[in-house]
Amino acid sequence: MDQKQVILTGDRPTGPLHLGHYIGSLANRVTLQETCTQYVLLADMQALTDNYDNPKKVRTNIIEVALDYLAVGIDPNKSTIFIQSKVPQIAELAIIYLNLVTVNRLKRNPTVKTEIKQKGFGENVPAGFLIYPVHQAADITVVKGTLVPAGEDQLPLIEQANEIVRSFNRIYNCSVLQEISPLMSHVSRLPGLDGKAKMSKSLGNAIFLSDSADTVAKKVMSMYTDPDHVRASDPGKIEGNVVFTYLDAFDPDKDTVAAMKEHYQRGGLGDVVVKHRLIDVLNNLLEPMRIKRTQLAKDPEEVMKILLKGSEKTRTVAEATMQEVRSAMCLDY
Amino acid sequence: MDQKQVILTGDRPTGPLHLGHYIGSLANRVTLQETCTQYVLLADMQALTDNYDNPKKVRTNIIEVALDYLAVGIDPNKSTIFIQSKVPQIAELAIIYLNLVTVNRLKRNPTVKTEIKQKGFGENVPAGFLIYPVHQAADITVVKGTLVPAGEDQLPLIEQANEIVRSFNRIYNCSVLQEISPLMSHVSRLPGLDGKAKMSKSLGNAIFLSDSADTVAKKVMSMYTDPDHVRASDPGKIEGNVVFTYLDAFDPDKDTVAAMKEHYQRGGLGDVVVKHRLIDVLNNLLEPMRIKRTQLAKDPEEVMKILLKGSEKTRTVAEATMQEVRSAMCLDY
Repeated sequence: MDQKQVILTGDRPTGPLHLGHYIGSLANRVTLQETCTQYVLLADMQALTDNYDNPKKVRTNIIEVALDYLAVGIDPNKSTIFIQSKVPQIAELAIIYLNLVTVNRLKRNPTVKTEIKQKGFGENVPAGFLIYPVHQAADITVVKGTLVPAGEDQLPLIEQANEIVRSFNRIYNCSVLQEISPLMSHVSRLPGLDGKAKMSKSLGNAIFLSDSADTVAKKVMSMYTDPDHVRASDPGKIEGNVVFTYLDAFDPDKDTVAAMKEHYQRGGLGDVVVKHRLIDVLNNLLEPMRIKRTQLAKDPEEVMKILLKGSEKTRTVAEATMQEVRSAMCLDY
Repeated sequence: MDQKQVILTGDRPTGPLHLGHYIGSLANRVTLQETCTQYVLLADMQALTDNYDNPKKVRTNIIEVALDYLAVGIDPNKSTIFIQSKVPQIAELAIIYLNLVTVNRLKRNPTVKTEIKQKGFGENVPAGFLIYPVHQAADITVVKGTLVPAGEDQLPLIEQANEIVRSFNRIYNCSVLQEISPLMSHVSRLPGLDGKAKMSKSLGNAIFLSDSADTVAKKVMSMYTDPDHVRASDPGKIEGNVVFTYLDAFDPDKDTVAAMKEHYQRGGLGDVVVKHRLIDVLNNLLEPMRIKRTQLAKDPEEVMKILLKGSEKTRTVAEATMQEVRSAMCLDY
């Protein structure tokens, strides 16, 4: 029997991925695929919950995000990359789960509550948005996921999924579904170029994995440092200085970074020098990805084939789960 | 091109069907199958929204209700009888529709509001129950239904479905979905044996299509008539007298019924005589159904085969609709 952990992870295909995604999850996926059974979900249906009026955006980003995946080294021979809407068993299972969750429980979900505010839905929350944690529970459990990489703010989603798992097994007196453990990220969130707490496409403060070397250079040069560090000879601050935060995250040579920090704090090290180092570090990281991406982007049909193959594989696993689910629920006509 | 109306009708398989169902819809379906393309839905998924903890009840009643259908003359060669959960495209479409409806809109649905009160859900409405009108919109539109037999209290459900149809076609700039017209029933609702407004299994005041001749006789003898009509010689009241309401509904000999009414009101006609006539009328109606039902019930596997064949046919139609839906939404990878 396969005793490997089964990981379900993925993204909403609403925009290209950036360095925050890389450090927060993509790098981890490249490692995890060596030891775990890993499913990587392109959540087009979830993306449509708040982009239902812009399906072309979702469609375009399916390929863009897949290119990012392949470029960073997620290997379709080791990870199963799939498109959510190509696995209709997820919808089937979500509809079943909706009976096991009350409307009030969904409204109390802290993650959803915050997002409803952020997105300004007010009283007009689409039903699809309110229920997305249920849909997500279906994503994970349909492939019998046991481990889900998660940040602190996603824990309520995993708790919701586990409540459904326990309800289902109890009500239908079975052990078809498995509880899910969060795999907590130990990396702190990457700030945006402007020093704001979060790098994000919508805040316009992100370096994308697909950015050219020039664009990366320009973006780094515009980065927030220490506003009081006017002349190179002045002592500078490290705390909140985005350039150093990024060096900490991406520079493999920790000793040099430590020495530069010390020099910067003492005075005598200019922002431009530090930024040039960061540009080199980032472009060293991104250049092989760019080359791979450019190569792959020449043949988007081949990329789509990979996604369709992964979706087919996932459908087979999902259908096996659904057969157990239907049997437990006396729906096995 | 097929210009026939496409009818979608059906039942939640939660109990055997009774005379109220017969007069309110089953008899009509037997007529409609001659001129329309008729789909008859066994809504197991919808039945589970408020019976999720009792799936065996739903499973058992799939066969019971199917036996009722076949016994009354719904002909699987003329009507397509199918099981909802065997057409997973419905779940897929429902999940898509959930993005086009707000939670507040669902809560304002008068039919659902009333049912939530009746079922005593209080604050703990299962999400699956709240969204069932969306699921129902998927039932109808996935087979491109144009006509749905409905009572007054179901009009808000059709209105909700049409709102979704219009939203979908507008947002995705297409004409994939068709608006639905209600086919209003002209038959007034059959009261229960006790004279209560509605014949219903849960109120224990129903005559089932599968009741034996003896049971029908016993039930008719217990029927509510005119409590002031103590002796046969007394004048009796027709209004609210269930026996006469049933004779009006089921006795093909309208002249005799009119004469009996006149006699009853004048005085001199006892309840027992009228009840005996009703017993004969009902057993004349039900006897051929009983014979057919007993015959079919000997081979439930054959009945299931009919349902699976109907489900397969529906899946083909549903998948064709879904291809159009996915194409309109850029989900046609």
